[in-house]
Amino acid sequence: MQLEDYVDGVRRGDRRVLAKAITLVESRRADHQALAQELVERLLDASGSAIRIGITGVPGVGKSTLIGALGAQLIEAGERVAVLAIDPTSQRSGGSIMGDKTRMERLAGDERAFIRPSPTGGTLGGVARRTREAMLLCEAAGHGVVLIETVGVGQSEAAVADLVDFFALLILPGAGDGLQGIKRGVVELADAVVVNKADQAPTAAERAALDYGAALELLTPLDGGWRPRVLLTSAATGSGLRELWQTVLEHRRALGAAGLAARRRRQALTWLHRLIDDELRQRLLASPALRRELAALEAQVLSGRATPTRAARSLVEAFVLKK
Amino acid sequence: MQLEDYVDGVRRGDRRVLAKAITLVESRRADHQALAQELVERLLDASGSAIRIGITGVPGVGKSTLIGALGAQLIEAGERVAVLAIDPTSQRSGGSIMGDKTRMERLAGDERAFIRPSPTGGTLGGVARRTREAMLLCEAAGHGVVLIETVGVGQSEAAVADLVDFFALLILPGAGDGLQGIKRGVVELADAVVVNKADQAPTAAERAALDYGAALELLTPLDGGWRPRVLLTSAATGSGLRELWQTVLEHRRALGAAGLAARRRRQALTWLHRLIDDELRQRLLASPALRRELAALEAQVLSGRATPTRAARSLVEAFVLKK
Repeated sequence: MQLEDYVDGVRRGDRRVLAKAITLVESRRADHQALAQELVERLLDASGSAIRIGITGVPGVGKSTLIGALGAQLIEAGERVAVLAIDPTSQRSGGSIMGDKTRMERLAGDERAFIRPSPTGGTLGGVARRTREAMLLCEAAGHGVVLIETVGVGQSEAAVADLVDFFALLILPGAGDGLQGIKRGVVELADAVVVNKADQAPTAAERAALDYGAALELLTPLDGGWRPRVLLTSAATGSGLRELWQTVLEHRRALGAAGLAARRRRQALTWLHRLIDDELRQRLLASPALRRELAALEAQVLSGRATPTRAARSLVEAFVLKK
Repeated sequence: MQLEDYVDGVRRGDRRVLAKAITLVESRRADHQALAQELVERLLDASGSAIRIGITGVPGVGKSTLIGALGAQLIEAGERVAVLAIDPTSQRSGGSIMGDKTRMERLAGDERAFIRPSPTGGTLGGVARRTREAMLLCEAAGHGVVLIETVGVGQSEAAVADLVDFFALLILPGAGDGLQGIKRGVVELADAVVVNKADQAPTAAERAALDYGAALELLTPLDGGWRPRVLLTSAATGSGLRELWQTVLEHRRALGAAGLAARRRRQALTWLHRLIDDELRQRLLASPALRRELAALEAQVLSGRATPTRAARSLVEAFVLKK
């Protein structure tokens, strides 16, 4: 396929071409990458109009089921929905996020939906480096809502929060132990905390909502006038999903067009600088000799024979001289 | 002065030599940096035995006064105390943290204390790149407690939290507006939240302590079995300082020797990787042509003419080819 075939196919909203375009974006081959970047830039003008939503939470909290139910609801309302899932299977044991597609059965079977796992690739703290481009392609293909799911490997929550307009943290009813397994700093990234599976323990869920509401009120600094919300949902029964969507829209109104544009500009610059660091590190680590050197320096730092400063400088020195 | 003079002077605990050694560590001259790294490595075996405490909070919360009072109390108890302050004056308008030395008058006049501001140098998110080495030198000079103060420029709280054994966030009484100005994610770094100036509004302070206690209980994941504490202090009257110190010691016992060693190893590796990124970026930005190129690419990303991925790759490509 030629560049023009990709451009036309994506613009037409052809799911098969979109899938191939994302494969191109994820490829490590130099010619694929060059083509992919040309493709994404050709489509930049057609992207940016979607509502971008990130969803995180520990395994078992019900992310896939919730996304499946929310997506199905949006499609019934006439929306086209794309789901991108940061798939950690390449780094951890256990099943793929998307492996159990039954959780998104209705969505997966609908041609107005597009579902895609992204391999983490091991960089940018577990977030697929290319998730951002995949999102732009989905937008260019006419998806008005992009849902990005992450299970929270490495720094992926922070990276996903920097991709989306609205970031939701899913927790289980049962305050106090709800955050076991959630990393420090993640709660403070959330635009909403969603107590999922609320139907299974209604009293505990209500209590959790009250407690988290008070805590967020206290602990989360204002960002653009938005106070993070606490919501109760049940992905299984569908209750609370409408309120979740209303909250997304309300957040958008509170931000305003200028606020949203400013948030996205800030995010684009953050990504640029992240990717510069990432690219530099990858160039350095592309050398087997330098990878061995790094391992040796780590051992020296850990045993107290070298300072991190000297180790960092000597590694970078070796990289620069080698070029 | 020769290397041996520095080594001997620092080991003797000579404050004048220690000050000069830190100046060496902070110098950008290549010969100074080489000497400084040799010096720090010669002293690594003598460092590491101090209790390392980080203190952050918005301007006006009373960080310097609290550190001055806590330091004076520790010195009376026979301890030798070093204070390192991340000085943001190089990046922001307004007075130096340490400018008003009256806040640490008693401490500054005592020869068992060593007080030193660190210029931020604009890298590592506002934390002086060399604060870590300065801390090691203070330890080698026999200071059993190192207090590191940061006002929170850029990512400096996270960097300081990765330097210390115990990280405290100071807030003012008056729940709800206490976190205005504190960045997202900082509360979740804290091993203790300290409501300072509690004497000025005792009722509000008690209320804040209760509210924050409940919120932290809920929102902060366990780290090594430690639940972040909320304390009331008044740096002016000295009340609560003894409890703060007891909490530091209790935290240390809870961590245990193995837990502390593990925390410090993790921190050393985090710093190594941070410094590699930092060093690579500095090498790249050392070129005026590449700095101009970065500015041009930022503009292209912001106007939607280039993707962050392409911009990052083209900048790093130019850097690698240029070497």
